[in-house]
Amino acid sequence: MTDTVVATSRRREATRQKLLDAAALVFAEVGLDAASVEAVCDRAGFTRGAFYSNFESKEELFLELAARVSRERVGAVRDRIAQLGRDGALAALPTDASEIVRQVLDVSADDRLGVLLMSEVRIHALRNPALAAAYLAQEEEMRRSVAQIISDIAATRALEFRVPADDAAALMLTVWEHSAVRAVMAGHDDAEMRRRTHEDLARVAQLLFQAPAGPQSS
Amino acid sequence: MTDTVVATSRRREATRQKLLDAAALVFAEVGLDAASVEAVCDRAGFTRGAFYSNFESKEELFLELAARVSRERVGAVRDRIAQLGRDGALAALPTDASEIVRQVLDVSADDRLGVLLMSEVRIHALRNPALAAAYLAQEEEMRRSVAQIISDIAATRALEFRVPADDAAALMLTVWEHSAVRAVMAGHDDAEMRRRTHEDLARVAQLLFQAPAGPQSS
Repeated sequence: MTDTVVATSRRREATRQKLLDAAALVFAEVGLDAASVEAVCDRAGFTRGAFYSNFESKEELFLELAARVSRERVGAVRDRIAQLGRDGALAALPTDASEIVRQVLDVSADDRLGVLLMSEVRIHALRNPALAAAYLAQEEEMRRSVAQIISDIAATRALEFRVPADDAAALMLTVWEHSAVRAVMAGHDDAEMRRRTHEDLARVAQLLFQAPAGPQSS
Repeated sequence: MTDTVVATSRRREATRQKLLDAAALVFAEVGLDAASVEAVCDRAGFTRGAFYSNFESKEELFLELAARVSRERVGAVRDRIAQLGRDGALAALPTDASEIVRQVLDVSADDRLGVLLMSEVRIHALRNPALAAAYLAQEEEMRRSVAQIISDIAATRALEFRVPADDAAALMLTVWEHSAVRAVMAGHDDAEMRRRTHEDLARVAQLLFQAPAGPQSS
């Protein structure tokens, strides 16, 4: 690429990021239905022209925002595992899937707004085939990332799986979503929401990774 | 109760059922957001007064409709198990959790509209604490019904569980919801949606019920 192309590409990326930041603020204030392209543009200091040269629709913007949130979450978990690996802490953990989940998810910064955003985008996707396809593709990307994390942990710890890493990742993500949505419904704060999702994920991890206790050890 | 009280109670129940039937039709046509109390009353042939003496709000009506749909689904599964039990078919099935799930869920009549209804009610519950409490209570009732079904099957078949029936029921319902929502998003018809949810539930049932295959049998 020439320098000009690189500069244009960088400027474009900066515009996208500013629009996404603005969208996060507008979403926090009024939710997805009431959020307008105008409100996001006003907040970001861009014209509607700038908006539509970056995103096809309000829904595409919010799906991209949801994807950014999910990628940050998974990235934090991956960094945490790399750090635990460097410290030798991962290999030193007891062979207890639920304890491994607790240590690994320690960094997870899920919050109520992120859960609401994913839920609102999901309901829009149910009504909008183009958005649905993009939503499912994003979920698939997330599943692959989590499957890779699970494979890495299993390889490091020589854990045995009862199902392929892909299926394990899908089930972990399913349980995470369910658990987080119910915690928000029940009015729990972010700390309690994280405690509950981690507990549910630890329980599922035990089903997925561990051989069941034989009669002699129960 | 006197005859008059019984008659009043029956008339009241008939009114509720007519309002619920009308709500199902209005929902199918315009979705939850666009459905109005007026439209439901017009369709049912009742006044707004009759509506509000039966339901506190539009949201309460639609939650009750979702509950009716869920109860019908679980009732159909329970009847199916009773029938399989009478025929001796349940005891004759192979000890394969996924085959049992397939036979038992054979009657399940999930459809796209039911999935959309539950999803729309859920998103409203995320924004409305009173509705959220009612939603979680209804989900808890469903979980208990499914746990009872699971316990009954396990007792009949002498299957071993890896988790308490309550946790097994919660995980089955979680996977059902996830799987059905994704099938609707992907644009699958009702038959394909059922095929996919049953496949996912069969896979989870194997995790929950069966001892993992030892190395000698793999």
